[in-house]
Amino acid sequence: MTSAVPPHLELGQAVNEGLTAVEVAMREVTASQVDVLRDASRHILSAGGKRIRPRLLLLSYLALGGADMPHAAKPAAAVELMHTASVVHDDINDHGMLRRGKPAVNAIWGRTFALLTGDFLFTAVYELMAPYGELNIDLAQAATALVEGETLQASAVKNKHFNHEVYGRIIALKTAALFRAASAIGAKLAGAGQQEISVLADFGFNLGLAFQIVDDILDLVADEAILGKTSGIDIVQGRGVAVALGEGNSNGNSPPSDPLDTIKRKMLEGDTVDKARSRADLLVHSAIASLDSLPHTPAKDALIELAQQVISREN
Amino acid sequence: MTSAVPPHLELGQAVNEGLTAVEVAMREVTASQVDVLRDASRHILSAGGKRIRPRLLLLSYLALGGADMPHAAKPAAAVELMHTASVVHDDINDHGMLRRGKPAVNAIWGRTFALLTGDFLFTAVYELMAPYGELNIDLAQAATALVEGETLQASAVKNKHFNHEVYGRIIALKTAALFRAASAIGAKLAGAGQQEISVLADFGFNLGLAFQIVDDILDLVADEAILGKTSGIDIVQGRGVAVALGEGNSNGNSPPSDPLDTIKRKMLEGDTVDKARSRADLLVHSAIASLDSLPHTPAKDALIELAQQVISREN
Repeated sequence: MTSAVPPHLELGQAVNEGLTAVEVAMREVTASQVDVLRDASRHILSAGGKRIRPRLLLLSYLALGGADMPHAAKPAAAVELMHTASVVHDDINDHGMLRRGKPAVNAIWGRTFALLTGDFLFTAVYELMAPYGELNIDLAQAATALVEGETLQASAVKNKHFNHEVYGRIIALKTAALFRAASAIGAKLAGAGQQEISVLADFGFNLGLAFQIVDDILDLVADEAILGKTSGIDIVQGRGVAVALGEGNSNGNSPPSDPLDTIKRKMLEGDTVDKARSRADLLVHSAIASLDSLPHTPAKDALIELAQQVISREN
Repeated sequence: MTSAVPPHLELGQAVNEGLTAVEVAMREVTASQVDVLRDASRHILSAGGKRIRPRLLLLSYLALGGADMPHAAKPAAAVELMHTASVVHDDINDHGMLRRGKPAVNAIWGRTFALLTGDFLFTAVYELMAPYGELNIDLAQAATALVEGETLQASAVKNKHFNHEVYGRIIALKTAALFRAASAIGAKLAGAGQQEISVLADFGFNLGLAFQIVDDILDLVADEAILGKTSGIDIVQGRGVAVALGEGNSNGNSPPSDPLDTIKRKMLEGDTVDKARSRADLLVHSAIASLDSLPHTPAKDALIELAQQVISREN
């Protein structure tokens, strides 16, 4: 598993093979005999999504010499399903009705079955990963962090306690931890040494932070139709971006019943968004720089390209 | 780990040591920095519960010669947390306001935080089990079965499609699978052979079926104050007990808006409950008989006693 990708096997081909295996693994593990679980899982999975987490895992694996794509695909599928589970539960709590341009699971099947579908996707993660020994520790920690981050966010919204530090903790826990797990698991699967694993883990973590900041910016500026999910839901968290970037401090001082569009308009005034973009740029450049010690390979180039896409994406 | 319990160590002492370690493990793994997750987890865990699943795991472990109680306690804690996670999510879906004689998590913290607390308990299970290698496969399968069983039940209630077969599938998935995982994991931790593991797995499975039938009967007859949870919630499923035991068939033929107390009164007429009790008795006797091939030890006696308690319990 530490052998280099055979020269005749183009990187693109390996990645495509891996991503196809990811889709197959996700489809197989969610093929429940219980109709609603199978149907709701397929609905949310077939709605697309960027698959950035499995792509990150597969490229990390390839960059460190991994070549057994089917072996790496299951953990990559588990990481994507973990994200998907949280998305399904998120839409329940936020009353999100659109996700990835399609009706959310709760919009079609109702809250009870959406809750159970999210649970099912969690247990599907567990089933996929169970045979992977110690790698379960990485993903379990990221799973806990994800739930902690979501909870911290819900608490901050409820208590109107958003500031630079809270926003930083939220995005580290709810997004960057899973990105880090993805890249670290990819490196470990490839049989990398501790130093290389650490490099990839840092890369994933910084990329995750940048990804979330860009996501929050897009929520602020994007039109619902373009974004494909109910916009404005993350706006209160979006306010955290402003605070985090020095626009002020909302510790209980923000108007308690500010309508979303008012907040949104306010956020778009001044240089809040520009500052957030600068912060995301910085994180991505830092992530790319952390790869310096790795040998130059097509997979490393692809990781760099992935990082650049995170800040250039428009949805 | 396959050495017998030292003669000087009384069984009761070993079990108590194990159960204490289970409480410590559950408390430690839920000691989140995020206040609401820690507080809500402690609330539901300190409300008690019978701890029958960890007890089953520990006794299975001891019966097959296991002696390292701290090592067995973490998987035992994981099994209990899995059950607890499902209970927290159940109370959201059923609007249950009382659990174990205390307010349910959703009654205190609201639905959003209850959903996240249930998710957190799931990821705590995953964290506890991650270092236990192949045993994760047993628990992951049981976790998926549990969610499938809950979903099948919700579907059966919604579609008014309860019959003998559906009821049997529901209780096998939502309850007996986790009991089987508990006893099988106990046996595997003790280093048991395939034959012994299979014996314990069967024991746990039949015990789980009996436990759920008794639980459904108690929901039918118990007073809310005695039972310590919102009674009547499981009544529609309770109707399934009747059907399962030959009282009729509710395939879409039951009155759509039967008030709960009418159903309840109806259920208590005739010999429905007696028949259900007979079925549970039979399962417990079958479970006990399946232990025949095991050597006679105090732990085996305790397993038999545990099984008898399942049918004699009044709450």
